[in-house]
Amino acid sequence: MALIVHKYGGTSMGSTDRIKNVAARVAKWHDAGHQIVVVPSAMSGETNRLIGLAKEIMPQPDPRELDMIASTGEQVSVGLLAMALLAIGKDAVSYTGWQAGIRTDSSFTKARIQSIDDTRVRNDLNQGKIVIITGFQGMDEDGNISTLGRGGSDTSAVAIAAALKADECLIYTDVDGVYTTDPRVVHEARRLSKITFEEMLELASLGSKVLQTRSVEFAGNYQVPTRVLSSLTDPLMPLDEEAKSGTLISFEEESNMEQAVISGIAFHRDEAKITILGVPDKPGVAFHILGPIADANVEVDMIIQNQSVDGKTDFTFTVSRNDYAKAMSVLEAQRESLGAAKVLGDAKVSKVSAVGVGMRSHVGVASQMFRTLSEEGINIMMISTSEIKISVLIDEKYMELAVRALHKAFNLEQA
Amino acid sequence: MALIVHKYGGTSMGSTDRIKNVAARVAKWHDAGHQIVVVPSAMSGETNRLIGLAKEIMPQPDPRELDMIASTGEQVSVGLLAMALLAIGKDAVSYTGWQAGIRTDSSFTKARIQSIDDTRVRNDLNQGKIVIITGFQGMDEDGNISTLGRGGSDTSAVAIAAALKADECLIYTDVDGVYTTDPRVVHEARRLSKITFEEMLELASLGSKVLQTRSVEFAGNYQVPTRVLSSLTDPLMPLDEEAKSGTLISFEEESNMEQAVISGIAFHRDEAKITILGVPDKPGVAFHILGPIADANVEVDMIIQNQSVDGKTDFTFTVSRNDYAKAMSVLEAQRESLGAAKVLGDAKVSKVSAVGVGMRSHVGVASQMFRTLSEEGINIMMISTSEIKISVLIDEKYMELAVRALHKAFNLEQA
Repeated sequence: MALIVHKYGGTSMGSTDRIKNVAARVAKWHDAGHQIVVVPSAMSGETNRLIGLAKEIMPQPDPRELDMIASTGEQVSVGLLAMALLAIGKDAVSYTGWQAGIRTDSSFTKARIQSIDDTRVRNDLNQGKIVIITGFQGMDEDGNISTLGRGGSDTSAVAIAAALKADECLIYTDVDGVYTTDPRVVHEARRLSKITFEEMLELASLGSKVLQTRSVEFAGNYQVPTRVLSSLTDPLMPLDEEAKSGTLISFEEESNMEQAVISGIAFHRDEAKITILGVPDKPGVAFHILGPIADANVEVDMIIQNQSVDGKTDFTFTVSRNDYAKAMSVLEAQRESLGAAKVLGDAKVSKVSAVGVGMRSHVGVASQMFRTLSEEGINIMMISTSEIKISVLIDEKYMELAVRALHKAFNLEQA
Repeated sequence: MALIVHKYGGTSMGSTDRIKNVAARVAKWHDAGHQIVVVPSAMSGETNRLIGLAKEIMPQPDPRELDMIASTGEQVSVGLLAMALLAIGKDAVSYTGWQAGIRTDSSFTKARIQSIDDTRVRNDLNQGKIVIITGFQGMDEDGNISTLGRGGSDTSAVAIAAALKADECLIYTDVDGVYTTDPRVVHEARRLSKITFEEMLELASLGSKVLQTRSVEFAGNYQVPTRVLSSLTDPLMPLDEEAKSGTLISFEEESNMEQAVISGIAFHRDEAKITILGVPDKPGVAFHILGPIADANVEVDMIIQNQSVDGKTDFTFTVSRNDYAKAMSVLEAQRESLGAAKVLGDAKVSKVSAVGVGMRSHVGVASQMFRTLSEEGINIMMISTSEIKISVLIDEKYMELAVRALHKAFNLEQA
């Protein structure tokens, strides 16, 4: 007997028929003798409907009141799922975040879980009940309802699994796992049966949006074995088959040592690059350039400062393409006070990254990557590296070519 | 400065524009220096939508889980109304039933309020905040969400007003008060500026559904001055005019002594009458007849047992027309074991009632009523009386005639 946490996304909960499917799947796990906690999202479209109503009244909704409203989508879901289980003869009970003891800070609309008092849930599990808990929300110390922000139900599920010391947290979603790259770009992309949470974190933050980044951090910090798997399979498929499906985010790094050096190729198409030429190279120059950008709520990704020549330097950074126009106008306004000669921009660039914990212990990943791109005639504009990732910025028109070439060069089509 | 509780129904909260209107009205009262608590219903249609979803999953929804779901409609409403007030610069905060300290029993879907801890609300009011509290719901002693049943927001508002010892509870609704009878039947029907809670109780239970019966009981038990008034007026109409509009449910009986003997003529069109002929008149006969009826969940209203002749008696009672077929089949099945000769039914009868606290101290109300009906050639089938009400059962086809004649006979068209 194991204690398993299931999480279902909005699409899986999208209609009463789909909710009945979820109930059938959950019942199958419970029938096999496991203790089950389920964390469902709001029915698809519901959270947007609620936020839409709020914005009709207050274009910049008050965060506390927005959480009061937005949290109701999950409350409806848990009640419906509990009923769907009761209707097929399973003993089930639903709880809101506050009822389940989920305490957060007071950062409404982006609250962080501080603690979970699992007394009530554990009692129910010991009585053989299936417990359904709202994702996405909790209660602050003053008894206000808080939400964790978009995708927060993933984080709720992993946090609840951590608090209960669950054996596994199963994230049911509309993809069947994590791939070596986007199958729409590389036909030979392969599903990974296992990935480390650090690799998952890099892939998630690089735009492979299978799991909310914070939930992966949580899984890493609390060592919660977490599996991403499909909710589109037959709910009555054999349990032992389902239990091995999808992609497991693991914490046994040694097992990965055997594996490939690189786990996947991630990419981010919509990047933009901005260069400030001829800035006087004195202390604080980076802050003086990036301060106004941050003040305009623009997030900066890659940053390069060139070797200074004659007391002048060039400074280049990338932003999301959505923020390009805003960032350019901020800098144009600052150009004179910065003493810069010129501001250049290029909004047709993309980022491609090779990710893998294996590269920690293998030299030559970077050179293999650069050789492959060079052989395809692709110029590298910027490079950034971390312990388990190398990213390059290239011309947008070469992005698919680069992803396919790297996927092949690192043999990712082979298990 | 007074402490005022406002309650708004689902129609008043039916769209974001209407919610802005409610906010404008509430702000006007707050600007005049009053402390304001608002209890809004769910947006019109929302509770039905939620119950519909539940029934798709479980035709007889589990009561606890249904309350989990159904309570969200009001939670959305309070958040939206708080935002609408914040958007026009008023300091407002919303609370669910459990946050506002509303403790109920555990009779899910028809819970009763047991206590209200008003500490939090009172603190906010003292800080000048407008407090918005969900109607229709509370929390039981185990921390489960409970609802008070249909129309429960009226009861919430009056109960909150009682707990806070509010100066007045204003129930804003889509009628502009309580009338001497239904204006659709009697054109001369007049709005009453004042009515006692006992009269209101009789009128409400007789089908003039302006207020939920339990809310009127609450108002009576806790002596909460409660006013029914229109939410369809201009929200910016002068406050002193609005404060005197509608109908006040009062507790100063002496002031009513001056008023008319009869306050209103109520009616209930859809009645049915059932007679059991020739039942042996022995102890327990009423129970043996009505027990199976109650077991079938049929509510009985008027009851008559005739004077016994030769050890046999006739027994007549009325039920709502919806329950007529069910009640008849229950009795037909019981006829032999009751030793009854025959069961007769008539589904085309209506009830007309004259209501007024004034009749306590005035003799002759009954005879005036009977004379009037007799002059119109209307036969009375059954009579029942209480301290402040006389009801007669008549042929359905005479109902409007009876109401008009009685309205005129008691001079109700004159203030």
